[in-house]
Amino acid sequence: MRHQSSHATEWRPALSRFCLRLLSEWKRLELPLTNARVVVAVSGGADSTALLLAIDELIKAERLILHLTVAHLNHGLRGRASHEDARWVASLSKESGHEVAVGRVNAKKLAARNLDNLEQTARRARYEFLAKTASEARAAVVVTGHTMDDQAETFLLNLLRGSGADGLGGMEPVRTLDPNARTMLARPLVEWARRHDTREYCRLRGVAFRIDQTNADERFARVRVRRQLLPLMQTFNSRAVEGLSRAARLLREESAALEVAATSLLKKACDVDGEPLALRADILAAAQPAVRWRALRRWISGGRGDLRRIELVHILAVERLLYGQRGGRVVELPGGARVTIRRGVLRFQVK
Amino acid sequence: MRHQSSHATEWRPALSRFCLRLLSEWKRLELPLTNARVVVAVSGGADSTALLLAIDELIKAERLILHLTVAHLNHGLRGRASHEDARWVASLSKESGHEVAVGRVNAKKLAARNLDNLEQTARRARYEFLAKTASEARAAVVVTGHTMDDQAETFLLNLLRGSGADGLGGMEPVRTLDPNARTMLARPLVEWARRHDTREYCRLRGVAFRIDQTNADERFARVRVRRQLLPLMQTFNSRAVEGLSRAARLLREESAALEVAATSLLKKACDVDGEPLALRADILAAAQPAVRWRALRRWISGGRGDLRRIELVHILAVERLLYGQRGGRVVELPGGARVTIRRGVLRFQVK
Repeated sequence: MRHQSSHATEWRPALSRFCLRLLSEWKRLELPLTNARVVVAVSGGADSTALLLAIDELIKAERLILHLTVAHLNHGLRGRASHEDARWVASLSKESGHEVAVGRVNAKKLAARNLDNLEQTARRARYEFLAKTASEARAAVVVTGHTMDDQAETFLLNLLRGSGADGLGGMEPVRTLDPNARTMLARPLVEWARRHDTREYCRLRGVAFRIDQTNADERFARVRVRRQLLPLMQTFNSRAVEGLSRAARLLREESAALEVAATSLLKKACDVDGEPLALRADILAAAQPAVRWRALRRWISGGRGDLRRIELVHILAVERLLYGQRGGRVVELPGGARVTIRRGVLRFQVK
Repeated sequence: MRHQSSHATEWRPALSRFCLRLLSEWKRLELPLTNARVVVAVSGGADSTALLLAIDELIKAERLILHLTVAHLNHGLRGRASHEDARWVASLSKESGHEVAVGRVNAKKLAARNLDNLEQTARRARYEFLAKTASEARAAVVVTGHTMDDQAETFLLNLLRGSGADGLGGMEPVRTLDPNARTMLARPLVEWARRHDTREYCRLRGVAFRIDQTNADERFARVRVRRQLLPLMQTFNSRAVEGLSRAARLLREESAALEVAATSLLKKACDVDGEPLALRADILAAAQPAVRWRALRRWISGGRGDLRRIELVHILAVERLLYGQRGGRVVELPGGARVTIRRGVLRFQVK
């Protein structure tokens, strides 16, 4: 058993409850405790401001020995208010003695150029900015202030979009930020903090966080989930947010376990001489449906390069080939590719 | 390849679209096509009435060669209206030439006697009555009129209750009705029919189905899901019901695959000489979290006899024992049982 140093003997300033919970989650997620630089993404809203203030409190109490770079991206979406947010974040950070990186994009122009939706574009620009900031600051971790409420909203948005099991897992508390896995993205509030906890902590610290007016704009689906759907769900169960967040976590882990099973099934089924894209039907047919569906999705994605417009109905059609049921020996996929079966071998053909 | 008999040459009456879809699902679920007796559960509402009328249409068109017993349970909850429903179902069935079994319980008294909630009690009484009717009629299958809307409501109710992955799978289209697996329960509408489809089909057949006033009583959570939550969700995605039903199906299959993995993990880990309730920690530790959690739940359920009050937090506490983290070598479970670890062996102790 590990020997623990006795904290009780040395004097430390009393930490707020919010900080103690953050510290315990910080350790659970195995985030760096000493001699590291961490980028904190701060919009100026209650959640990210509370995160910054709490890490700052932990640093001043010497419970974390970290250097911070506060990163703020001005999306240029709310004119004067956007500028004021950026200035506010910069001055709060400097007062606390932390470095600041403020970036600026024109999200509307970017979205128009890429023919993409504004929320998506702003989100992508933000994560690119965070990755760039981390790389320039030589930080191994970027932390964001997403809360359990954000997680519940994400879960419901994905559910409403008709996401399968893959999409219902919601946000991971830790994931890689860049394809080379040099920088990690961590969300140390997402598994435990409610939005009212962050507001309360900001008040406790006497900091008047910024209020983003677009959070009240009901043209955004997320805003309507927050202001209409979740409150209605809470009339059924006052702990609906916690329940949804727990469901997301369970489904995320289940998805991971099934991915492992699907990988090993694909490896076993991919046993046709000299044909890397051919699969043995008997091996697929003997697997559990959920594992087989994932394996088939992965196989189609590998053959086509993506899964655009592939839905459960296509996977089920390919599955029927395995059992020699009626409906032909060929399945046409949207976008022109097809799957055939002959003598117990499933093949993928791109037209 | 199977040779198909050519239907085109013999004359058949044109079947309605609703009947054709039912027949195709009936075959997919491998329900009996000929020389069998089937119990149809009919409340008199649009869903079950449409199911009865459609099976009747398929029998008259000789696409199904079945004998029907229409089963109706009067729960005695709505006085005169309950009697009228029972009479109406009986006369509709007799007019179509089918046998009828009408049962009667006093659900309120039953609930009071068992200190149970009224909905639960009525549901249990109904399924007992269906099993008894099937057994007396020597029917191998009972069919009910649950639709995709019922499935979406069940999914949301379970989600609101905070069910884990297990509870989110919703209703299976086919399951056993009794513990001896002599009778099957099938829901041949649940994967495709919307509630408006059943109403429309009743109208097409000129049958004025009964309207249950308790379906408008917003004291019931299910009624509020139907009348408040689902309509709000449909403002986000007009195909929300289909999406929720598809999610339930995917999660049901995923749950089944993980159960298989958990069974095999438990079997592997249960390898401690002469101790059937001891598990090897190293084998559990090497598994995927989602599989391990299920295995631990099953193990605890086997040791205690049930999973009452066991939540994810208890499973996670037991999991921490495996990794020798701080927090002691014992986990106390609610209700007095405890789990201990010593020399790499997990043991269950009932006080």
